[in-house]
Order: sequence, then structure tokens, then C-alpha cells
Amino acid sequence: MLLKNLWNKSLKEECGVFGIYEHPEAAHLTYLGLYALQHRGQEGAGIVSSNGQKLFEHRGMGLVNDVFRESNLNLLQGNKSIGHVRYSTQGADPLKDIQPLVVHYPSGLLALAHNGNLTNAVALRRELEALGAIFQTTSDTEIILHLIAKSQKTTLPQKIADALSKVEGAYCLLFLTKDSLIAVRDSYGFRPLMIGELSGAAVVASESCAFDLIGATYGRDIQPGEMVVWKEGKVESSFPWVQHPPQQCVFEHIYFARPDSRIFGENVYEVRKALGRQLAFEHPIQADMVVPVPDSGVAAAIGFSEYSGIPFQMGIIRNHYVGRTFIEPEQAIRHFGVKIKLNPIRDVLKGKSVVMVDDSIVRGTTSQKIVQLLRQSGAREVHVRISAPPTIGPCFYGIDTPTQSELIASKKSTQDICQFIGADSLGYLSLEGLLQCVRKSNQYCTACFDGKYVLLPSDG
Amino acid sequence: MLLKNLWNKSLKEECGVFGIYEHPEAAHLTYLGLYALQHRGQEGAGIVSSNGQKLFEHRGMGLVNDVFRESNLNLLQGNKSIGHVRYSTQGADPLKDIQPLVVHYPSGLLALAHNGNLTNAVALRRELEALGAIFQTTSDTEIILHLIAKSQKTTLPQKIADALSKVEGAYCLLFLTKDSLIAVRDSYGFRPLMIGELSGAAVVASESCAFDLIGATYGRDIQPGEMVVWKEGKVESSFPWVQHPPQQCVFEHIYFARPDSRIFGENVYEVRKALGRQLAFEHPIQADMVVPVPDSGVAAAIGFSEYSGIPFQMGIIRNHYVGRTFIEPEQAIRHFGVKIKLNPIRDVLKGKSVVMVDDSIVRGTTSQKIVQLLRQSGAREVHVRISAPPTIGPCFYGIDTPTQSELIASKKSTQDICQFIGADSLGYLSLEGLLQCVRKSNQYCTACFDGKYVLLPSDG
Amino acid sequence: MLLKNLWNKSLKEECGVFGIYEHPEAAHLTYLGLYALQHRGQEGAGIVSSNGQKLFEHRGMGLVNDVFRESNLNLLQGNKSIGHVRYSTQGADPLKDIQPLVVHYPSGLLALAHNGNLTNAVALRRELEALGAIFQTTSDTEIILHLIAKSQKTTLPQKIADALSKVEGAYCLLFLTKDSLIAVRDSYGFRPLMIGELSGAAVVASESCAFDLIGATYGRDIQPGEMVVWKEGKVESSFPWVQHPPQQCVFEHIYFARPDSRIFGENVYEVRKALGRQLAFEHPIQADMVVPVPDSGVAAAIGFSEYSGIPFQMGIIRNHYVGRTFIEPEQAIRHFGVKIKLNPIRDVLKGKSVVMVDDSIVRGTTSQKIVQLLRQSGAREVHVRISAPPTIGPCFYGIDTPTQSELIASKKSTQDICQFIGADSLGYLSLEGLLQCVRKSNQYCTACFDGKYVLLPSDG
Amino acid sequence: MLLKNLWNKSLKEECGVFGIYEHPEAAHLTYLGLYALQHRGQEGAGIVSSNGQKLFEHRGMGLVNDVFRESNLNLLQGNKSIGHVRYSTQGADPLKDIQPLVVHYPSGLLALAHNGNLTNAVALRRELEALGAIFQTTSDTEIILHLIAKSQKTTLPQKIADALSKVEGAYCLLFLTKDSLIAVRDSYGFRPLMIGELSGAAVVASESCAFDLIGATYGRDIQPGEMVVWKEGKVESSFPWVQHPPQQCVFEHIYFARPDSRIFGENVYEVRKALGRQLAFEHPIQADMVVPVPDSGVAAAIGFSEYSGIPFQMGIIRNHYVGRTFIEPEQAIRHFGVKIKLNPIRDVLKGKSVVMVDDSIVRGTTSQKIVQLLRQSGAREVHVRISAPPTIGPCFYGIDTPTQSELIASKKSTQDICQFIGADSLGYLSLEGLLQCVRKSNQYCTACFDGKYVLLPSDG
Repeated sequence: MLLKNLWNKSLKEECGVFGIYEHPEAAHLTYLGLYALQHRGQEGAGIVSSNGQKLFEHRGMGLVNDVFRESNLNLLQGNKSIGHVRYSTQGADPLKDIQPLVVHYPSGLLALAHNGNLTNAVALRRELEALGAIFQTTSDTEIILHLIAKSQKTTLPQKIADALSKVEGAYCLLFLTKDSLIAVRDSYGFRPLMIGELSGAAVVASESCAFDLIGATYGRDIQPGEMVVWKEGKVESSFPWVQHPPQQCVFEHIYFARPDSRIFGENVYEVRKALGRQLAFEHPIQADMVVPVPDSGVAAAIGFSEYSGIPFQMGIIRNHYVGRTFIEPEQAIRHFGVKIKLNPIRDVLKGKSVVMVDDSIVRGTTSQKIVQLLRQSGAREVHVRISAPPTIGPCFYGIDTPTQSELIASKKSTQDICQFIGADSLGYLSLEGLLQCVRKSNQYCTACFDGKYVLLPSDG
Repeated sequence: MLLKNLWNKSLKEECGVFGIYEHPEAAHLTYLGLYALQHRGQEGAGIVSSNGQKLFEHRGMGLVNDVFRESNLNLLQGNKSIGHVRYSTQGADPLKDIQPLVVHYPSGLLALAHNGNLTNAVALRRELEALGAIFQTTSDTEIILHLIAKSQKTTLPQKIADALSKVEGAYCLLFLTKDSLIAVRDSYGFRPLMIGELSGAAVVASESCAFDLIGATYGRDIQPGEMVVWKEGKVESSFPWVQHPPQQCVFEHIYFARPDSRIFGENVYEVRKALGRQLAFEHPIQADMVVPVPDSGVAAAIGFSEYSGIPFQMGIIRNHYVGRTFIEPEQAIRHFGVKIKLNPIRDVLKGKSVVMVDDSIVRGTTSQKIVQLLRQSGAREVHVRISAPPTIGPCFYGIDTPTQSELIASKKSTQDICQFIGADSLGYLSLEGLLQCVRKSNQYCTACFDGKYVLLPSDG
Repeated sequence: MLLKNLWNKSLKEECGVFGIYEHPEAAHLTYLGLYALQHRGQEGAGIVSSNGQKLFEHRGMGLVNDVFRESNLNLLQGNKSIGHVRYSTQGADPLKDIQPLVVHYPSGLLALAHNGNLTNAVALRRELEALGAIFQTTSDTEIILHLIAKSQKTTLPQKIADALSKVEGAYCLLFLTKDSLIAVRDSYGFRPLMIGELSGAAVVASESCAFDLIGATYGRDIQPGEMVVWKEGKVESSFPWVQHPPQQCVFEHIYFARPDSRIFGENVYEVRKALGRQLAFEHPIQADMVVPVPDSGVAAAIGFSEYSGIPFQMGIIRNHYVGRTFIEPEQAIRHFGVKIKLNPIRDVLKGKSVVMVDDSIVRGTTSQKIVQLLRQSGAREVHVRISAPPTIGPCFYGIDTPTQSELIASKKSTQDICQFIGADSLGYLSLEGLLQCVRKSNQYCTACFDGKYVLLPSDG
Repeated sequence: MLLKNLWNKSLKEECGVFGIYEHPEAAHLTYLGLYALQHRGQEGAGIVSSNGQKLFEHRGMGLVNDVFRESNLNLLQGNKSIGHVRYSTQGADPLKDIQPLVVHYPSGLLALAHNGNLTNAVALRRELEALGAIFQTTSDTEIILHLIAKSQKTTLPQKIADALSKVEGAYCLLFLTKDSLIAVRDSYGFRPLMIGELSGAAVVASESCAFDLIGATYGRDIQPGEMVVWKEGKVESSFPWVQHPPQQCVFEHIYFARPDSRIFGENVYEVRKALGRQLAFEHPIQADMVVPVPDSGVAAAIGFSEYSGIPFQMGIIRNHYVGRTFIEPEQAIRHFGVKIKLNPIRDVLKGKSVVMVDDSIVRGTTSQKIVQLLRQSGAREVHVRISAPPTIGPCFYGIDTPTQSELIASKKSTQDICQFIGADSLGYLSLEGLLQCVRKSNQYCTACFDGKYVLLPSDG
């Protein structure tokens, strides 16, 4: 049997975007930028570039390194380009869903890379179809392009402003035409998007780790509700839409973003460490060692260790050669899916009381397996500490979550979950504790923890 | 250096289509049908099937045998399907141009496979873009889908009738929805399209050789201007458009179609043999042997031999292992591109006077090389006989021709062409002679021979 | 279900070899030579070249065009090289069997390409293993290399002479070292091997069609029992082994070789035409047309037509896009394996009496299916004429045949075979008739027709 | 430009082996075992299995996950198998070097997987070639097979004992025949090899992490100089060779082995932590944080932090999506090769004094780049601590090291190296300190640190 999607846990990021304006190695640097953003989407990647006259495009299924080779990268001419990595695809022909999307609209070719989810997509799609629009993908992205094409406004930025005024939901957008690059972040600012600079060229990316790899300097976050237009060597910023209190996704800090990234104004590793310290404060325990579930639990575990004084140990080793798929033995090996990735060190754990630090419990089955693996490796006690509150609701803003009923914390008490996963104790970080660890704590979306959704999906 | 497109001569067919309605092995038989139509397009292939609820699709670059494997073919569920082979692709992302195209339109998913060229495509595209339509491919096919989506009529057949009333040019179309198959042939009937029957299921194909391979029986040609709708187990025929005198492409008989096919009511091999006989009558010569340029010249050469009494010899052998591309030696070998495919037999040709029979001279360079190869192989005299009139104009109805100025017969007399290709004599079939060899000779388009174009491309 | 090996009939050639000495584009020209010899082996191909210091090698499964790309071809440095195409592989790891084989022996690297079969392979292998030799392939070729390595003689030609004195069977060999090229043809001369010249460089090939493609001139056949050594710019010929009356394979003329090749001193097409004429003389019949089973039956059918005066028709069309494998429909289509390749033209055959000309009947099942296809396409009478005598025994000299009991002619009379294949009449060419059509008719092996084997396989 | 071999540092392990005897899912479990041993070799992998009658084999270039698919894995029948992962290949045809090697020897087929390097390979090869042996690979492994084939002893274990008595160097060997599995570890025990048990089946592997993944239980190390034979359901151990004081490779503990493995009787993670503690004792420093070079420096950094009390921080993030190759931008980005893998966190490092812990300095250039990256990310001071003594000599026992002159510590003092890499201070662990961290410290090879080679390569 073939096991699939081994890289990610049940919560999956839905995309990363990167753009660059007026650099002689635009496509190459976009390739590198996407490479740094690979954790935000491993199913497909694409780049569209412009040499001022024409757009060039290449897309494919798989990792950035699989999709791009020197031969196809060299065909992506020009000094402007945008790129996209995506996690999941639907549709009958998955290749069609790989972004950036490129369409012919009255003023020429327009490419779009999109991170996020629209909440009124179904309604908009019905309206557009009633007007004779045809759709070639199942993605929300195509809706935005139709609205732009239908706008009666004059310039492209005006058309985009007009089109997005009809759209609700989460979106970071990068547009490329033959002569301009346009970046947009929705008025709630659900997903991160930021601007940097490299030898005079502007760069835009979902996370700052993309800047680091190419040697670019972080400039500033694109603000919620901001549109930035680079054209004819100039840059213009505007805020064409109704402003809202920001709803930045706190889960980017907890799990999705790379620890070496700076998002929403703060370094992710530092935030995670603070979560771990707060967690240790809220749920103290006596134990021999703090062991992270690697890699996402490492920073919180270090924080937990610092605050509690309990030694930090890399007591579980992650196999980094795990690909997307795996051939499972026919005779089931217990906990196989987890074992492929994680191996506890018996000599470290034997007879010890262990604090296992992870960032979330989704369905509970993975946590259960890891707890069992620790016990089989000799751990005497396993105390689970989660550096986030219980996940009780799905995300409608760009994260692929199970349905509510699959989320164990939507149905069970912490005590019941503790029993289900077989831990000796279980502690979740409180929502208040979580918000104390980030600056501007009133600017975050915490809907998956408290059910306070600022927008809900329409059925049309 | 990499030589490309070794399979085809300068005149290239632009597509083949196949469809089947209500057969349990629909996709599989479509695969076979496309396989039999491979000569009509070698650059890409695709199949879309329906199981009554959903459409399933697979497409890829290359030969039918490269694109389809048991694994992807088995995913194409259902008892209805359409398929397409295509010759050439444009666009930055060639995969996007591989048909059938599938779009979401208000009533659901709609797939379309298209053989032909629209002459008012540019104008229609501009109009549609002005109305806010976005295009994701460079193909004419997408225009038709937009027009259908915009139609205010009620049923799909009505919408198709409405949409196509705005369209001019050559088209054979196969539409597939979850519950119906619709076939359309344009009012001039430029390209062939016919209906057959297999165990109670309806089949549609560009040529009858596709029926032979799957054991289906030829029924009848779809008429110019006819739309046939299969739905809910019933079939309905209608003629919703203004009728015109047919303009069937005579070059299908001369070169494109497979000799074992029946098109426009006649067998291609028999027509070609008649052309060869007529050619011998019009341009008699004394020689030792008649040698065809294989494979397309074989039937005409047999006819020439029969009428003239000059023995037929397969004096040139074709290498059938030639793929699409070839690595040329750096030090040029004389006539290399031709040599890869064709090798004259010295022991047969030495000291002999040869009638070389081919179906056309496009730019003249290939004919020149073959004549030279024959002389190098010892032929004493080379008399070239062409089983068609001089090609003086391009085709706007679905054949990929060089521009007029590249067509040698548009600029040079037969005598000059004879000198250019280095032949001892050169004879073209007359237009009258050509038309005597087909039935209903008033129903053919001969624009590439006489410049009488019934439709000309609009610039919009 | 996947149908395999669609290209060849039940009798399969086992290899082709090509070599070139001192040409700046050695590997490139070897690639072309193999390309022209592709019909002699489609399962794998390889080239080894030398730049005077080192050997370079590339091998792969598939067609020449699949195995070699500009990138790997450019790595094959030097002005000397040998290449090989092979039909079938055995062994658990088929790649190991792709030739040329390269081994380190005391004097350096030695590459060998081999066409043929040894009859005392089993015995030799046992002897060598008893002496401590290890084998990494299942091929006879490795035996020859072991014998060379074990020889106590001084020079490589002497070692080769010594080694081959122990070997029995059919072999054409090309050896390459860093500074020499050596060609050997066994003393019976079962398989063809010939020398040509290109711009001062020596070329060696299994068939002359390889010379034609690269513009080389045919020089002479390597004689049975001859070894030719090119080294330090000089060439030396010797006959180091006991001489035998030649036993050249007459089936090369009947079926295997390309019709444009010259082998054993005669053009294959001309020989085949003579076979067809003789066949018409021996088995006259009244009929409407002579139809070849393409491609191998074409020349004989032309000869039959010439002698009998019955018109020649290409009444069966061969699909040349057939690859090595094919996905068969699950519901069997009658005669499917044959139909993929061959399609009779109903309009040509309907109501006609047909002489069907083929070169052999092996198991009888394919002939049976073709006869049935012709009748289904309307043929009134089908008279089968075979341009060779009945095949009653297997080949031990390099052709992959079924076992004797599978050969229909080893068990049934011509009358019974006629009934089995469903023909109205059946005529085989006589052995005497066959030999009248070739020069030096006493120099041919006809063991598969008369059972007179000059060598029989040893069991060791 | 394509960057290659991004996974490994300049010291590269040369192989890992895995075997299993009498388990119904032998090949599948070997696949998993190799998967767990992937860090020991990423260039190629292979498995040979036996069903009692025949051997089955599959090999390929790349990662275990690339080489094996369900289709080829299912062909590897039987309940016994051995597998191999390898790092580097030489030879013109790299596929030939992928192990296990399979040869025909007088008693049938014999497969061999080999981890290690022979020191008298050149001399043995010359001797064998003088006796007429031919070599098809450049590997030492083939020498062993020749010696076995030439042995006059009776049984395979006796032949192996005889053959290996002539061989000098480092080798862990797994042999597979149709009915037996044989494991050998050389008399010095340079490389690890151990036995486990799974549901009654015996398993053998280079490291215990391979047992963990499949749920097998660690049994014991195979002893230096021990041969273990599993045949006919029985197991026999013997010590057929002259015994030596063990020379186990201490670098396996320092860098190569997985931290979750148990080798030479101890857990690697625990040894590394002890090295870090000892390092902190030997080279104390005042600093704000201890930062490992991930992943190999993590355990030592935790130990350093524990002993010194300086907080541990994951201040450098490793990108685990790095493949084997990478397309470098044309305009060099500073320190690019390192940046692809490692990104320091500016917000963590800014203004801080940092202890950077790594396991070795080979050429010095990588360490130099990491130090510079840390400084560019704001580190105020960078104190480098190496959890091993200076590497002054190459390894002749199975590790691919640069030549002596490329090893920076062979030419420069610690002070000069400190200056070269740009650190504020540099401390290497002492040899004595290193040996205090392992049990049975007199059983280790430390030749690369002290130049005391127990065996030197012969030139033959």
C-alpha cells in the first residue's frame, strides 16, 4: 500500500507566493524564493516571468526542485516574475490548478498567484456563470480574474480594486503583467505578505526566510487592505478598500511559518519559545526531560525547558529523507505512519518521565501514536504539553483543516483527550496565554480556538 | 543539433477527433480510436469521459501511446467519452493547448474536442474580451466555449446552435457533458466526420480507420451543417445553420487521410490510385520504373504503373523507427533530414530511368533532396510526377501550411520548379484531372490550388 | 492488459553491430549507424568510444532514439567507437545484458559487441566456472571475454584468436580497446558483417544500410573466419582459424535484413523480388490482385505480380505508430494483436480473389488471423503464398525462434496448414527455388528448412 | 550552474547494508531498513531477494524512495534478502557500481553487499588479472567475489573464509545465495554491523535505527572477525580469521551514525552529548547561547549547554527540502552553497555572543561561511567548538575523505584555523577527552586524529 502526504500533519498550509520587480535574474531568484517557501506547499510550483513584451511560464507537480531545471528556468526571460507553491489540488486535472494562473484579458496577459481562500466564492461563481463566464479550474483565483476582466474601470489597479471590492475572505495576491507587478493583501490581513529589497529590486514574499536565502533585506509588511503597484520603475501604495481590524492568523506563528521567518512583525522562533515558556508557567510538571515532537515543537520545547529548568533533549529523531509517498509493508507495523518520520531514542527515554511538547492536537490519532512510541521506548511517564489552545473549529481563511467533527477538541474535554492519547497529563496553552506571547495581540484571528469567525462562507 | 518534427512534411494536419456514446469501455475504445487517428496529430492527446455524474480527463504531450497508460486510462470512468489528437501547439505552456478542453459553465462541466480553424477568430476574441471574457489558451476552441456560455438560449444544443451561428470557418466538434455527446460539422464540411456503430453504441470519428480498429461499422458521414445529439439513449439530428455548397478538403484524399480510410464517401487508396492513373494519362513518359516517395506516394505510384505499364518498384525504403526528434551530426551529412527517413536502393536504381511519384511539392527543398538522392544512387533519369496540382496558396481551414511566399508554385513556373528540384521532367496533375477522380467533384474545396477561398480570415 | 513486443513476428533477429575507426565524430556516427540497424534489435542499445586514453560508455533500454540524447552522446569522446542494438534480454537485471560489454583485463579496458549465438556456451561456461570464473550476465559474450583474459598469448589479436579457437557457433564481434578496433566474423559466416569507408575512416556494420545513412561507401564483406585489426592507423587482416564451407543465413535475405541493404554480396530487395517471381512460377494461381503482408512481404509480392501479371495492390495498411506495447481492451476485440498493426482496405478487397504474399508461417496463428481479416473485409478468395520453404526447425545461430514443436510446419502438412489458416490455397517456395534466387547458393545455411545443422548446441 | 551533492559534508560515509532471513515480507522490510539507513548513502540503492530457487534483483540511482516502487518491490520474491545504499560511484557507467553485486559462480548465484574499503585492493586486482580474471566494475567488492570463485574449498562459508584471509581492510559483508544469508565483519571491526530479531526472523543491519523502523529487536553486535551463517533454518557463528585488537571507527559516533542508533554498544546521541559536555569542560567560554550547526551538531550542543549552563538555542534553521542538486544563480550570492541548507535567525542572534558547536572542520571553508553567516545575522562574537579532535589524516577504511593536503588541520595550527574561519575562539575536543566519552576506549580507530593507521593501502 502506498502511504501519501507524509510531510504534513492534518493542518496544511495552502500556499506561498514570491515576486520580484526589475532584477536581471528575476526567474532564478523566484525559484530560490519558492525554494525557501517550500514548507508552505509541496504539491506543485510555478513561475511566470516578463521581459517587458511577453510572459513566460513554467509549472509542474512536485517540489520546486523537481519542477524547475536549468533548461526550463532559462526560458523564463525578463526582469520581473512571480511564483507560487501550493499544497493541495482538487479538480480532475491537477496540473490546471498549479499557479500562477495566466489569462488573456483585454489589455493583454495577466498572471496571478494567490494565497488564501475566498468565503463568498460559491456565490460569486454562480453570479459570474449566470453572466456567461466559463471556468477552467476549481480555484477561487479564477473568480478574481473574471471580476477584473468584467470591471468597467480604466486601469488595471482600478480594475483590481473594483474586483476585490466584491470579494470576501483571505487573500494575498501577486499580479504580473508585461510591465508591472502588483501585490495585494486583504483588509483583514489573514496571511502574511512583506516587501524586501535586493540590489535596488523590489521583492515580495509570504515569509522573510525567502529574503534571507537570496540576500535581500526585509523592508516592511504589506498592510492589511494595501495594494502596492510597481510600474515603470515607480512604486505606489494605496488602500482602496474598507478597512477592518486586522485578523492575522496566529497559527502561522504556532505551526506554519518557518522559525527563521519574521511575520506580522515578529520572529517566529522567538514567539514559539515564548509560547513554550508560557506553557510551562501555565502547566507546570516535574519530569526528567522536555522532548519536542520535531521539527515544529522544538522552539516551544526549548522555551518550556528554559522556564521550567527541566533539561531539553532531542529524544525523538526525525528522518528527513521522507518523501511524499511511502510503500507500507502489507503486514501492518504498529504506528507505521508515524514511525517513518519519528524514532524515539530508547537509551535516552528509558525509565524517564518525559514532557512531550507539540504545537497542536488535531484528530488525536497522531498524538496517540507518538505517546505510545515513547512508552514503547521505555518512557515511564509522558506528559503532553501543547503550545496552543484546543483546536475546536475549522479555518476558512486558507488553511486546509479537517471538518469540525473530526477535530477531537470540538467534542472532547481536555481530560478525555488526555485519556484518548494515553498521556499521564495533558496541558493546552490558554488563549490569553497565547495572546500574551505576541505583540499587538488584538490584531490576531483566533477563530479556530474560540469560534469567533469574522467572516463565514456563503452558500450563495 | 536536434532535428525536430521529422514525421511530417511541410503540410501538417491539425487534429483528429473520436467520440463514443454508451459503451462500457468508452475510454479504452477512445484510446484505440485516437491511436488509429495518430497520423492526424502527434504532438499531444487527451480523453475526457463521463460516468453520468462526473467528467474524468487525462491529457499529455506526445503520442497516444506515450500519453496513456493502463493506470491513467482506468481512471477515465463511464460509458461516454471524447478524445483528440493534435499536431501543433502554440502558447507558452503547450500542455494548456492539449484538448479536449473542459470548462465549468452554468449547467455543469462541458468538454470540447475541435478539428479545424475559425476564420473570424480574431474578431470574435476581441468582442468577447471587450465583454469581460478571459482566455486561458490561444486556441479558437475557447472562443466557441465562451459563445456558448454567453448564449441566452435554454438547452445546450440551442446554445451551441446560437454560438456557432456567430462563428465562421472550419470545424468538426465533439462536445461531452455528463449525460450527452454532441457532434457538429461546419456548414461547408471542410473536414471529415462520420458516425459508426459498435454493439449498439454510437461512435464518431474523423476517419473510418478508427472504426476498423475497434471493430465498429461505418454508418454515414455527418453532413455539412449537421448537429447530432446523443442524450438519454436517443439520437437527434438537426441542421440549425444556413446551408452552403460543401467545400470538402480535397487534400485529405491527396495526402492527409490514411489510405485505408473512407472519407467524403470514398476510399482514399482508390482515389489516390485514380489520381496516379490520371497523372500517367496527363504526363506520359518512357521509363524503367515507377518509384513512390513512401508512404504517401505509394497508391498513386501503383495507379501510375497500372496505367503506364511501367513496372512499380519500392525503390526508396522508409525507416519507420524515426521518432519526433533526431540528433544530427555536427559535420553536416548531405541531405541529412531526408536521409533519416528515406534510403534509395542503389542496386534497384543504378542506371535506370525513374518516375518518382509524390503527392505534392511545398517548398521544393525536400523534392530537390530526394531527386539528388536518387541520382546519387545511380538513377540515370528522374522524372517527377505529382498527384495533385501545384500548391499556390495557404489553407485557412485547418491545415498548417507555410505562407504563400514560401510555396514554390506560387512564384515559379513548372519548368522553373523542375529545374530547381533537378528533375529531368516534372508533371503536375491538372485541377480538372484531380476532380475527375473524385465523386461529386463540385463539393470540394480546391482553394490551395486555384485561390478560390470561400472564406477569408478576418483581422477583426 | 498490456500487449508487448508488437514490432516483431515470432522470428526475431538478435542484434546489430556498428564500429568506426578514426573519425572525429565517432560516437555520433555510431549512433546513426545503430539507428539504421534498429530493425535488428529494439530492446536496448549501447555505444562505447575511445579517445586513445580512456573508454566512454552509455547504454540503455529502448530504441536508439530513447537511449541517446545530445547530452550523453557528447560525453562519448574520441575517434573510435563501437555500438550494439539488441533484441531480447534475459537475466534478472536486463540492463546488464545491454552491450557493448566492457571489462578490465590485464592490458586495460576491453569492450565487445556481439551478434550471434555460441553453440558450446554451456560447456564452456562450466569449464570456466570450474576454474574460478564468475559471470555477471547470462550472455555468451562474457564467455568470450573470459577466454581472452585467460589466454597465455601475447597480443590482443593473438589472445582473441586463441580464445575463439575454443568457441563454436555464430558470431560477429567488434572489439574496442583504447587504441584499436577489431572485427571478427566466425568461420561459417552465419551473420553478415561488412567494411565501408567514410572520409578515410573505416566503418564496420551488420548491414550496408548503416553505411548509406552516414554517407559511407560499402567496401567488402568481412570473410567468414576473418579477423580485421585496425591499430595505429594501419589495418591487418588474418584468417587464424580452421576454415569451413560458408553457412550464411538465408533468412537474412528472406526476412531480417532491410530491403535497401546489401548482404552476402547481393541486394535484399532484389533477392526478395526474385523469390516472389519464383514463387509465382512454382505456385501459379488466377486472382484479382496480389497483396503483401506489409512491410516484409512487399518486395516478394511485387515479384509475384511481375511474373504472374496479376495487379499489385497495397490492400493491407500498416500502422507505423505502433510502439513496443499496447493497452488491449478488456473485452477482447477479435484478432486484436494483428489489427493494431494491419488494416485491410475493404473498398479494395470487396468481392475480390486475393493472393496474399508473406515471407513465412511460424506458428500459423498470425497467418490465420490475417486471412480472416481479409475475408471479413470482403475478399472472396484468399490464396496464401510464402516466399520461403516451410520452417521446420529452430535456429541455433542467432535467431530467436520458437521451439520445434511450436513450428506448425514441423508437425503439419502444407494441406493441413492451409486448412488451419483458412486459406483457399497455400503455396510455399521450394528449397531449390529459394537457392536459385541467390548467388553462390552453396554458401547458405538452410537448416531451419531442411534440418541439416552444421553445428548443434552442446549440453556441456 | 548546478550545485551537486548538497546533502553531505566533505566527509562522506560509504554505505549501509541490511539483510533479513526467513520473513515473508523480506524485500519490503529490506526496503524499510535501507530507508532508515539512507543517511549512509544517497547515490544508489539495491535489493536482492531469494525465494529458495532464484534470486531477484532491483537497483537504481538515487534515494531508496526513488529506486523502489510498489511494482518493482513486488517482483522481489522470497523470504530472504539483502540490500545496500551507497554514497559515491566511480566508473563510466555508475549503475554498474550499485550493489548488491550478483554473480554466477560454480554453485549458482551469489549476491554481495559490502560496506568498507580494502587496503590491498590494487595488489589483489593485479594478481587476479594476471590469472585471467576480468573485472566489470571498479569496486573492491568484485575482488572478493573473484577470490571466492577461485577458492578450492568446498562449502561457501569455507570459500568465503579462504577468500577473506587474503583480503586486508575494512568490510562488513552480507552474502545471499538462494538458500543462505551470510554476514561477515572484518577482524578490526571498523564498521558497525549488528543482529536483530523480528517475529522469529533474523535481521542484520549497519545501525540499530533500521531495526526500530521495522519493529525488530536489537540482539547483539556481530563481533570483529565473526562470520554468521543462516542456512536451512539454523544459524552458525565462527571466527575463521586471525583476531586483532578492535579498531572501531570513532567517527561513526561523532558524525556518521544516526543519533537514534546504537552502535559499538552505545547510543550515538548519548555519546555525542557526552562529547559536548567534555568539550565545554575542556574549552570553557562565556557566551549568551549555544547554537548547533544542525543537524549533526545538535546533541553535542545540548551537552555543551548542560555542562556550561549557557542556554541552548536552535539559532540556525536547516532547510530539509534540499535535494541532491540545486540550480545556483548566475550572479553569485555570497556563501550560497551553505545558505541553501542553513539560515541563521537574526532576531535570535542579534548582538549576542554565540558558541557554535559542530562535529568537525574538514577543509575549513564551510565553517568559515557559517561563521560569516552568523556575523551577518548580527552575532557579536562567534566561538567555535568542535566535538572532535582536529582531523589530520584521511580515512582508508570506508570513509570518503579529501586528501591529506586538503585537510586544514593537517597544515595549520588551531590558532591559524581560528583565524581562517574568522571565529573569536576555536576549541577542539582532545583525543583523550574523546575517548573518555566512549566505553572500551581502547577498541577504537582514531587514525584520522593521530595518524596511527593499523593498515595502510598497498600499491600492489
